[in-house]
Amino acid sequence: MAVVSVRKSQIAALLGVDWRGEDVAVERVCRIEDAGSGALVFATDEKALAEAVASRAALILSKTGADERILLVKEPRTAFALVYARWFDRRGMAGWDANACVDERSTIGPGCELGAYAHIGAGVLLGERCVIGPRVMILPGTTLGARVRVQAGAVLGSDGFGYVRTLSGYVGFPQIGTLVIEDDVEIGANTTIDRGALGETRIGRGTKIDNLVHIGHNCRIGEDVMIAAQVGIAGSTEVGDGAILAGQVGLAEKVVIGPGVIVGAQGGVPTGKKLSGPGAVFWGTPARPIRDYLKDLAALARIRRRD
Amino acid sequence: MAVVSVRKSQIAALLGVDWRGEDVAVERVCRIEDAGSGALVFATDEKALAEAVASRAALILSKTGADERILLVKEPRTAFALVYARWFDRRGMAGWDANACVDERSTIGPGCELGAYAHIGAGVLLGERCVIGPRVMILPGTTLGARVRVQAGAVLGSDGFGYVRTLSGYVGFPQIGTLVIEDDVEIGANTTIDRGALGETRIGRGTKIDNLVHIGHNCRIGEDVMIAAQVGIAGSTEVGDGAILAGQVGLAEKVVIGPGVIVGAQGGVPTGKKLSGPGAVFWGTPARPIRDYLKDLAALARIRRRD
Amino acid sequence: MAVVSVRKSQIAALLGVDWRGEDVAVERVCRIEDAGSGALVFATDEKALAEAVASRAALILSKTGADERILLVKEPRTAFALVYARWFDRRGMAGWDANACVDERSTIGPGCELGAYAHIGAGVLLGERCVIGPRVMILPGTTLGARVRVQAGAVLGSDGFGYVRTLSGYVGFPQIGTLVIEDDVEIGANTTIDRGALGETRIGRGTKIDNLVHIGHNCRIGEDVMIAAQVGIAGSTEVGDGAILAGQVGLAEKVVIGPGVIVGAQGGVPTGKKLSGPGAVFWGTPARPIRDYLKDLAALARIRRRD
Repeated sequence: MAVVSVRKSQIAALLGVDWRGEDVAVERVCRIEDAGSGALVFATDEKALAEAVASRAALILSKTGADERILLVKEPRTAFALVYARWFDRRGMAGWDANACVDERSTIGPGCELGAYAHIGAGVLLGERCVIGPRVMILPGTTLGARVRVQAGAVLGSDGFGYVRTLSGYVGFPQIGTLVIEDDVEIGANTTIDRGALGETRIGRGTKIDNLVHIGHNCRIGEDVMIAAQVGIAGSTEVGDGAILAGQVGLAEKVVIGPGVIVGAQGGVPTGKKLSGPGAVFWGTPARPIRDYLKDLAALARIRRRD
Repeated sequence: MAVVSVRKSQIAALLGVDWRGEDVAVERVCRIEDAGSGALVFATDEKALAEAVASRAALILSKTGADERILLVKEPRTAFALVYARWFDRRGMAGWDANACVDERSTIGPGCELGAYAHIGAGVLLGERCVIGPRVMILPGTTLGARVRVQAGAVLGSDGFGYVRTLSGYVGFPQIGTLVIEDDVEIGANTTIDRGALGETRIGRGTKIDNLVHIGHNCRIGEDVMIAAQVGIAGSTEVGDGAILAGQVGLAEKVVIGPGVIVGAQGGVPTGKKLSGPGAVFWGTPARPIRDYLKDLAALARIRRRD
Repeated sequence: MAVVSVRKSQIAALLGVDWRGEDVAVERVCRIEDAGSGALVFATDEKALAEAVASRAALILSKTGADERILLVKEPRTAFALVYARWFDRRGMAGWDANACVDERSTIGPGCELGAYAHIGAGVLLGERCVIGPRVMILPGTTLGARVRVQAGAVLGSDGFGYVRTLSGYVGFPQIGTLVIEDDVEIGANTTIDRGALGETRIGRGTKIDNLVHIGHNCRIGEDVMIAAQVGIAGSTEVGDGAILAGQVGLAEKVVIGPGVIVGAQGGVPTGKKLSGPGAVFWGTPARPIRDYLKDLAALARIRRRD
């Protein structure tokens, strides 16, 4: 892999900060304990800063410090991520694997990377610079925007779980709708997202989804939503922009999660329930305001001590 | 894809209802808002009916209404699914993908569809008209009945999680049994079902299983059971006919869920526990009758208000 | 498949017990109800023993009994597993499938089995006698010790779920670390394990992981840990040697589970929490000592009865 080389002055310009000393070259990003020559590191506290200064790192992102290798930034961790994203992120550079399976009736935007045995079904559209991992399945009816990243084993556009009960057993309701994944969405390994039954399932711009998540048919997930691992979202549920669903959260059918709402890990929201309030935090099953949840725990602890 | 064309009279005959007006042709099923000429739609309330009548739909399934495009049926949603299943469901028509991996020692029934890189292991039996999605793995020891549908990425016949503890660590208990999937079972994307350790795991006729479900070794799942996404069922557990397990339910080992029992989302049933009563609804962890569960929530809310 | 034939005397020697009667040959292991000639079975109670003695089994592992086909052992189930592991376990004997995808820059130890479309990425190291199932993805940055077994569809070395929030949305934190899987680890179907962000994720020797488990970046899982199906472990969490996590347990970020700790099914451990005490059992969300958990349930039941 070609070595990337970036000057201190370029990094300072990206971050909008001053620099001094020698205009050294940075060739990689790493942890402080791995820092050799050419390394960029970041320090978030005094201890880390002392270690960074004692290391051979070429450049250090920190809130404080006088060493001339330090660039003073407000949020070192964020600055580190921005530098990485701008120059060092290698995802998307591998082109199409010879074993990618691309239906001739699909449309793939310029600059896409397709992993080994990635499966792009008939009629699928991919925007520019998508990164599709090995063994990802993108089934008919699915459209991806630009710069969507999907990790290994994910299934996009599966049939939803919808049946009607009859005297002779369950009969499948049609699952013939669409799935739209907007720009800059990222999707984890072995996650599954169903297409709409008749309408569409939609994942909004910038939303990030972890591994082993399930999103059912006709869901409408907003922009910049964070969905941690093993979250399950049943059919026809809406999640507003900027919401955060922690690990293993379960949302039943036709739930409405308002913009900016946070649901704590393993929380459960029953069918049809609405939670709202930007920054409001809900916890437990059934999910309730964290204040109430903590009171409930305290009450149980009090009763327990009394017994 | 060839266009299907079905007459109003044929649809009325399937549903066992009268029809009047012109014997129009229906060519597709869709939502009311997408209805153009040749479309079949259904309406479940007055508002939807008004929209359907105002649309260009060729035929409307509804409980009420006088428009001659309406077929009067008791359950419009069910009728719609029945028409779809009878004439419009295209699953199963694609034959064997050139890249399906079929062991020569397996037996595949007539009319099966095998997706790209579907993997059919040695000794596997598939009944007629199964639909096996891309990248599905059906491992040795597995038998499928007729019309079984398995979505992308599912793994059928994996080794169960069984170990014995010894002074030098865990040693695997033999996982050499079988997995039997009966007729008309449907299985979601990335779901995993283990074969028996020595005996068999069995999924009964007509049972429907959603995405990312885990079913352990030696489980015995009855007929027409509904298992929603991310349910986990540990080894040697039994689920009776017609039971319903909502999303993220967990059943521990050697649990017995009686016929027709309903376990609410995220409910947990501890090892060896038996739940019974057709139509009885259990909720929470440990799962208890919904009446008790609601009382517990009310008690907590009362204590909370008092504090 | 070649028939294995093992003498009663060899089995007795492995188990360190006496034998008498004829030195018969055992050719397979099975359940008592399937026992024909040449079969080895085990009995854990009087009823099973009576059935075993009445069967045509060649050899019976039991704690009691006078039949000369019986080998007297302290733990029949464990003895059965040890005999199976020593002579009858066929996993690992199939070599490389012609369709395995092995990057030329990877290193595969001697005696490994690679299933169809198993994917071994650039720079990956596999120790000797690993068994990699069909469609397993082992991504760059991953190292496996000896005798590691990975079931179908698992993804090892995926990118972790780490982002920083900026005014223009989430930006990915670098996910460029490593994943180390030590000797004798077993990993279930469709499980996902992320590599470290900058450092490493490590799974200790002898640990067993079930299906559909998620392990996040920078986790440190000890030796001989049992992790049941659908457990989710967020980033930077530590699990000590010999711990047991039952099904659907969730551990948030930076949790520390001490050696030998047991967390009951569906238990949840909040961010940064430490649980310790070998053999200590924790239950519920938030996970608390089982004694407290049972008291809480009893208190709720008491309040419920009073109402």
